[in-house]
Amino acid sequence: MIESLHSPHIARVKALIGSKGAKERREQGLFVAEGVQCTREALTSAGGPEIKIIYATEQGLSKIAELDLGAVEIVEVSEPVLKAMSDTVSPQGLISLCHTPENSISELALTGSSTVIYLHEIQDPGNAGTILRTADAMGVTAVVTSPDSVDMYSPKVVRSTAGSLWNIPVYEGVTFQALASIFPDTQKILLSSHASTSILDLKIAGDCIAVFGNEARGVDAAALGAAVTEVTIPMAGNAESLNLSAAASIVMFTLSAKVAG
Amino acid sequence: MIESLHSPHIARVKALIGSKGAKERREQGLFVAEGVQCTREALTSAGGPEIKIIYATEQGLSKIAELDLGAVEIVEVSEPVLKAMSDTVSPQGLISLCHTPENSISELALTGSSTVIYLHEIQDPGNAGTILRTADAMGVTAVVTSPDSVDMYSPKVVRSTAGSLWNIPVYEGVTFQALASIFPDTQKILLSSHASTSILDLKIAGDCIAVFGNEARGVDAAALGAAVTEVTIPMAGNAESLNLSAAASIVMFTLSAKVAG
Repeated sequence: MIESLHSPHIARVKALIGSKGAKERREQGLFVAEGVQCTREALTSAGGPEIKIIYATEQGLSKIAELDLGAVEIVEVSEPVLKAMSDTVSPQGLISLCHTPENSISELALTGSSTVIYLHEIQDPGNAGTILRTADAMGVTAVVTSPDSVDMYSPKVVRSTAGSLWNIPVYEGVTFQALASIFPDTQKILLSSHASTSILDLKIAGDCIAVFGNEARGVDAAALGAAVTEVTIPMAGNAESLNLSAAASIVMFTLSAKVAG
Repeated sequence: MIESLHSPHIARVKALIGSKGAKERREQGLFVAEGVQCTREALTSAGGPEIKIIYATEQGLSKIAELDLGAVEIVEVSEPVLKAMSDTVSPQGLISLCHTPENSISELALTGSSTVIYLHEIQDPGNAGTILRTADAMGVTAVVTSPDSVDMYSPKVVRSTAGSLWNIPVYEGVTFQALASIFPDTQKILLSSHASTSILDLKIAGDCIAVFGNEARGVDAAALGAAVTEVTIPMAGNAESLNLSAAASIVMFTLSAKVAG
């Protein structure tokens, strides 16, 4: 059991979640997932990021005791060591060091009734994580992000996904033009506050790529480099706009209900 | 212009947003709203919390220059003073000290096609603020919170509402039993992950009170002290559950579309 607060393991984990974490994560191909839910998903899901090491306190281990840990390297640490590694107030005794998946967009296969979410320069980790979580719940096929979007493996995003990183593939840093060139004939919609077509009136035929722009400035359809149909969420009330993850959740649910219904 | 970092104005604002802020806000009947959007809403909306003082830098003032400031006390402060008052990295040069509305639930009037949101012991400020913002967008009549729910006038909630506190009335600390005794015949629904009725199949006749439970443990229908119909959000995918504000946004949109359609 590691008890020393000078252990190089602490520096290693902290480097991946600190202020220069994005660079470290990219260079090492590793990211950090804290807590019970992420560790459980990582151990039980067929897909998603592979675990390299689980750092666990005795209490943390007891929370995953019934799972098959045979193939995973477990490093037991003291409570103070786990706290020193952690980004949160209560890391629940478990921190997993995971391999960042190297997903290539050329491998993305659509089913004929797939929904794909494309996030254009979104910045807020909470929004990104919540969108991934809703996408997973609504049976979305994949989440694709543009260059200059938030790092989907940053600690806050990973936490907000609540384990969904293990259920749905993420493709990062893909331009919309590149995505559109792979799926030229697929229906593409852009959520926009000034569109005249309501998401409720939209006809979905086959696969659909739904685009969401930056939290503050959205995205101009003309700037995307491929044709999209602009759609809006009808609002009976006063608010100028919805929070991005709330809007995306409404769109994903509506698309999911259209496909099902 | 206040330039001293020892100004009692700084201590006054900080007390309202600090770790003991909830107690201070309750005792003083005041809360703090930062930024351009909240200040604009406060100055232009007919309803909502009244401004007591606006603390503004020269740059902050320029952002609301075209608005009628005649009836409001403006206190000009230096950039460092505003920063010292602030809860955020970029307070945008404007901090408003506002009177907490003393809304009494007995004044709540429904229209016959009203939706009311009831939040039972919800804890996350971001969720609370996002729900209020979506409620405003969807034309919800009021948001009511239970005892032991997050303080709707805490800085994080106020920020997440993006000004919606000025468009929609909030009633805090009301038990569900009390609400139900005022509206005994109104349809009441509870979002629950294990319900068999889909929100899509729900028939809405007249007013509707929609209940959402705590982020981690939800709320047991039997514990509410009044009858509710449990409904669920159909999910095609894998995620165990949705983020609370995502789920609430989907429900509010669906209810809004039912009333409109």
